[in-house]
Amino acid sequence: MSESVEDRIARVSFGADGLVAAIIQQHDTLEVLMLAWMDAEALRRTLTTGRVTFWSRSRQEYWRKGDTSGHIQLVRGARLDCDGDAVLIAVEQVGAACHTGTRTCFDSDDLEPVVSAP
Amino acid sequence: MSESVEDRIARVSFGADGLVAAIIQQHDTLEVLMLAWMDAEALRRTLTTGRVTFWSRSRQEYWRKGDTSGHIQLVRGARLDCDGDAVLIAVEQVGAACHTGTRTCFDSDDLEPVVSAP
Repeated sequence: MSESVEDRIARVSFGADGLVAAIIQQHDTLEVLMLAWMDAEALRRTLTTGRVTFWSRSRQEYWRKGDTSGHIQLVRGARLDCDGDAVLIAVEQVGAACHTGTRTCFDSDDLEPVVSAP
Repeated sequence: MSESVEDRIARVSFGADGLVAAIIQQHDTLEVLMLAWMDAEALRRTLTTGRVTFWSRSRQEYWRKGDTSGHIQLVRGARLDCDGDAVLIAVEQVGAACHTGTRTCFDSDDLEPVVSAP
């Protein structure tokens, strides 16, 4: 296509902190693995390198899952939501997505809602 | 269980703006439908009423999808991530999740990443 990476990134509504929420989903099982944050450069790297890159709010630096653990995330797709303030990244997750060793970051803490009738 | 709703909400790390990111996922197909924001009261309503409730950053008010469209979201589950700053809500989505009329809010805008080799 003719649209450049910069044109695509320009459609994102980054927050006042310069970040957009990125949902990471396993491409085939559709498990939601984690949520993290990207600035424009992290998104640029994600769209162009094949590896998911985030911005760490706590450490104030770029990071890629797997650089230390080997549990890398390979990009399979990326979509922007209707108001431009969230991205959904489809990945091939090697090993555990969570630093605790569980498959996803949502495996351990059930908020036990009242469930409405089917 | 013995843990109260307030105990569960107390585990959430709300941001400086008092909000937590909420990923909304269809419980059976596992489609990611949308991402929106909750403060403690929106999460409390979500966990106790069976209907997903958000905080609108633009309108500065609580809202529930479907109050005008009929496209309601019925709660099927809710989980907190490992560092407490994102919630994953499993729902039964009636009709379209997106205000544009598409099934999900991620259907329309492909960011066309470079995809790494399988």
